[in-house]
Amino acid sequence: MASSLEQKRHSLAHLLAAAVLEIWPDAKPTIGPAVDDGFYYDFDFSATVSEKEFPRIEKKMREILKVWQGFEKVEVSKEEAEKIFAGNQYKLELISEIAEKGEALTLYKSGEFTDLCRGGHVENCSEIDPESFKLIRVAGAYWRGDEKNKMLTRIYGFAFENKADLENYIVMQEEAKKRDHKKLGKDLDLFVFSEVVGKGLPLWTEKGATVRRELERFIVDEEIKRGYKHVYTPDIAKLDLYKKSGHYPYYKDSMYAPIKIDDEEFMLRPMTCPHHFELYLSKPRSYKELPMRIAEMAKLYRYEQSGELSGLVRVRSFCLADAHIICKDSVQAGEEVEKALDLIDYATKVFGIKLGTDYSYRLSLGDRKNTEKYFDDPQAWDLAEEELRKVLQKRGAPFIEVSAEAAFYGPKIDIQMKGVSGKEDTAFTVQYDFVMPKRFGLMYKDSDGVEKEALVIHRSSIGAIERVMAFLIEKYAGAFPTWLAPVQVVIIPVRENHNDFAQSVLEKLQKVCVRAELMSQDENLGKKVRAAKNDLVPYMLIIGDKEIEAESATLESRDKGNLGAMKIADIVNLIKEEIEEKK
Amino acid sequence: MASSLEQKRHSLAHLLAAAVLEIWPDAKPTIGPAVDDGFYYDFDFSATVSEKEFPRIEKKMREILKVWQGFEKVEVSKEEAEKIFAGNQYKLELISEIAEKGEALTLYKSGEFTDLCRGGHVENCSEIDPESFKLIRVAGAYWRGDEKNKMLTRIYGFAFENKADLENYIVMQEEAKKRDHKKLGKDLDLFVFSEVVGKGLPLWTEKGATVRRELERFIVDEEIKRGYKHVYTPDIAKLDLYKKSGHYPYYKDSMYAPIKIDDEEFMLRPMTCPHHFELYLSKPRSYKELPMRIAEMAKLYRYEQSGELSGLVRVRSFCLADAHIICKDSVQAGEEVEKALDLIDYATKVFGIKLGTDYSYRLSLGDRKNTEKYFDDPQAWDLAEEELRKVLQKRGAPFIEVSAEAAFYGPKIDIQMKGVSGKEDTAFTVQYDFVMPKRFGLMYKDSDGVEKEALVIHRSSIGAIERVMAFLIEKYAGAFPTWLAPVQVVIIPVRENHNDFAQSVLEKLQKVCVRAELMSQDENLGKKVRAAKNDLVPYMLIIGDKEIEAESATLESRDKGNLGAMKIADIVNLIKEEIEEKK
Repeated sequence: MASSLEQKRHSLAHLLAAAVLEIWPDAKPTIGPAVDDGFYYDFDFSATVSEKEFPRIEKKMREILKVWQGFEKVEVSKEEAEKIFAGNQYKLELISEIAEKGEALTLYKSGEFTDLCRGGHVENCSEIDPESFKLIRVAGAYWRGDEKNKMLTRIYGFAFENKADLENYIVMQEEAKKRDHKKLGKDLDLFVFSEVVGKGLPLWTEKGATVRRELERFIVDEEIKRGYKHVYTPDIAKLDLYKKSGHYPYYKDSMYAPIKIDDEEFMLRPMTCPHHFELYLSKPRSYKELPMRIAEMAKLYRYEQSGELSGLVRVRSFCLADAHIICKDSVQAGEEVEKALDLIDYATKVFGIKLGTDYSYRLSLGDRKNTEKYFDDPQAWDLAEEELRKVLQKRGAPFIEVSAEAAFYGPKIDIQMKGVSGKEDTAFTVQYDFVMPKRFGLMYKDSDGVEKEALVIHRSSIGAIERVMAFLIEKYAGAFPTWLAPVQVVIIPVRENHNDFAQSVLEKLQKVCVRAELMSQDENLGKKVRAAKNDLVPYMLIIGDKEIEAESATLESRDKGNLGAMKIADIVNLIKEEIEEKK
Repeated sequence: MASSLEQKRHSLAHLLAAAVLEIWPDAKPTIGPAVDDGFYYDFDFSATVSEKEFPRIEKKMREILKVWQGFEKVEVSKEEAEKIFAGNQYKLELISEIAEKGEALTLYKSGEFTDLCRGGHVENCSEIDPESFKLIRVAGAYWRGDEKNKMLTRIYGFAFENKADLENYIVMQEEAKKRDHKKLGKDLDLFVFSEVVGKGLPLWTEKGATVRRELERFIVDEEIKRGYKHVYTPDIAKLDLYKKSGHYPYYKDSMYAPIKIDDEEFMLRPMTCPHHFELYLSKPRSYKELPMRIAEMAKLYRYEQSGELSGLVRVRSFCLADAHIICKDSVQAGEEVEKALDLIDYATKVFGIKLGTDYSYRLSLGDRKNTEKYFDDPQAWDLAEEELRKVLQKRGAPFIEVSAEAAFYGPKIDIQMKGVSGKEDTAFTVQYDFVMPKRFGLMYKDSDGVEKEALVIHRSSIGAIERVMAFLIEKYAGAFPTWLAPVQVVIIPVRENHNDFAQSVLEKLQKVCVRAELMSQDENLGKKVRAAKNDLVPYMLIIGDKEIEAESATLESRDKGNLGAMKIADIVNLIKEEIEEKK
């Protein structure tokens, strides 16, 4: 059997250490694992080693690779190991730890190089394509990640099966870097952070807020069309509520500390479910009201370590397009799951995201043995999992099944989305819940007059606004489609005497709710055009003598190039229609 | 000089006690003051006295009133007072307290009745119109408001100058009770409370949320049209932010306890200003960008004692239509105050609220002597107060000036609104701020290249969504104008075979974004019509054989009555236009 990519990457870490030691014999290798897209090795150098040295190190690595056969395993005593790594305090520290735990001390030898290692290499070094790896960057890293320890030098490399894969990945990374939503968020003035407001708490500028408002209104209106009842519920609630729902023990660590008000404790809500259930419980309910789709753009608060915070993707407060569908039975629940997936399909289609290419379905199951993490009711789990499986099979799209990825109250369908960096993440989920109805007593009077227990579907349509915004910024590389663009049209009069006509065009566009701006400042045409292009504005209207005479403007589209002179009325219609159709 | 209404009310409290003692000689009078709309007196009765006794008591009061002249003041020693009130432990307790403080003990005598009292009565009892008062209700009240003490019986009366004023007030109170937003909120299913979510934290049902969303979108869109930049900023921020702004010492008591996250303390924000200032500070600013109108539908959190919480009017979290306008100088600030008042005028006009009748302007000034409550800069106060005064004078509407009602950072214009109960309250404010720009360093580069300090206008357009909602529910008595109504049209097919056509009408209305509902259940016509009327739906479309034949419906307007049969297309246009014009 061929060795795995992980084994190749791990082997390359050894190769890197061997090469470094040949060039800098006094460097002290410490730890060097395989990672998601390659490998790294941390060294204690006496010299400063920069990225300029990479060609030299890579050349040496390829030389050594030619002569290495495989990795020879040797088990040694603590004393022998200490002798071999004498003078390298890092390896000595590891050796005593392994020995203390009573574990075997294993060395792996290839060519002249020996490393303390648990194993996991290629069978034969010829399996490694010498063009399949590339050193990428040097970074500082504390020994064992502890800032009290010495700062080491980490050399980091990409590694794939072959040269083509490696090159593809490098291109994708470069593109991802250009499209990084943190970078574009700043360049396009979409959101900012403030140290004194706090980490992980974005402030949305006018432009970012415009996109966000469009996204929010789009999904709220679409959901209402599909029979959702949009509500507003408070962002804080008594701790008792989360104890009643049973969330507290499972979510405690991701909730913020309670706020004492008089004699009661209040929490920043980490989820919306119990709030919606309390609304449901405000009146007796009949089967005629079901399915009841309670939806909200709900602000939620979940703890993230400050080191984990990142742009709009990892924040401490986010706004979820959330809903809870109260169903009368598993048949209705199945239908509602289908409809929820239809809505997700629709919304993603509007965003230009495709099932198969950009996202896929994952059926996340429970674990009957782990009754601590998952509610103990094997029959209910079987039923619910089968219901979701049937829904997915009916859709015909491929899906994978993963164990022990469910919520504590039931299985779920995860929509797994690939970002521009190629990394996959759960974007939205549709969850089946047979636990909350019991805890909250979510009952309804059926057609036969009997009080029955409902079922709940938890679902998000476009997920958290912050995350979908980050995703879309990167997907569009900041060039939002016209309906989402913060500024949709820039009107550029060639000279000052064209300002009045330009102003009248501005008003015509604003009247039909197009976000238009007039660049009437006394600057040269080229500068204005460049500014509009930098801002990735979908349309530019250039107005000079010729245009005014013909009641027209020269229309330049960001995506389709120069469309030539067109009548103002036609331009207004063209842009208005494009916005309405969200194409 | 004629006696004041307060003196009359106070005299009537004595009269009530005298009448009660004539009927129940062993009753013990305790305390009886004048209040906003009348008077009350608390008694310790051995018998149970209910509202059924009111005619008898009132009759006795009128008999005594005829014979009383005035109130004769007598100063007595502690011993004399104790002798007179022997056996009434309540009066004895008051006597020792007054004596302990070294104050004079004064009695007031009229006819046979003597009371321990500080004074403040009519000169002559003939000034009291015998038809100007009415006993209203009996209530339990602890002695001195302390629940550890005995429960006394409070008899409460309305009193005005004359019979006409009294009757007007009673009618207004009854109307207010019917229009009470708490009652209508429940009857019309607009919002609910949940004990386990917490007091003062409303949950908005679908219907209430629909009205709220319309209100929010209306004001956001209107503000954007007027050049506001709508943003989103976080609802929590580090305590440091409110220390930087200087709000903390002034607002501490109305802020909730800090939430510790890692080593930092975060607060639920009580105001938006510092958040918007941080946005302003995210880039260097030029005079060309000013005035910069930063606006937000901002969720705020302020402490209210649980006893003070009331429906949507006093809540613990509210959503303010807030904005901060950064201006380059006092001239620009004056212009922006004018524009803010114009916007308030416009919004209130849309709601049918009138300047003069429903609201008036109040100029709230600082207090140069109170430098603890108001920022110490007499010149800046003079300038700012004069600027606001000029704006109000220019508008020509009458306004009053009140001292020591300003914010700590500057004077403000308050829009004082009268609710249906006749009570006046501050609905919105426009504030002038010369302190925050200093604290935050809100600078801009002027046309001469020099960095200058800005000025800030704080303003709300329609205030807190919760309060404006409460106000509008009461103003409209639940009958929202069509553009705000949760359900705008109900379609009622006469019989089952009319359902298909009714469904097609529903779709036509929904297509142009009219909130329409179809009552297709198998219930009789009368019941359906009653349900729609109870819900105060603006329009009912009744569809039977005749209507289908003529492609029409019988249109019944909540406000204009039966409008007869009309073509469906005409009905759709009529309703659509009414919504768009918000009339």
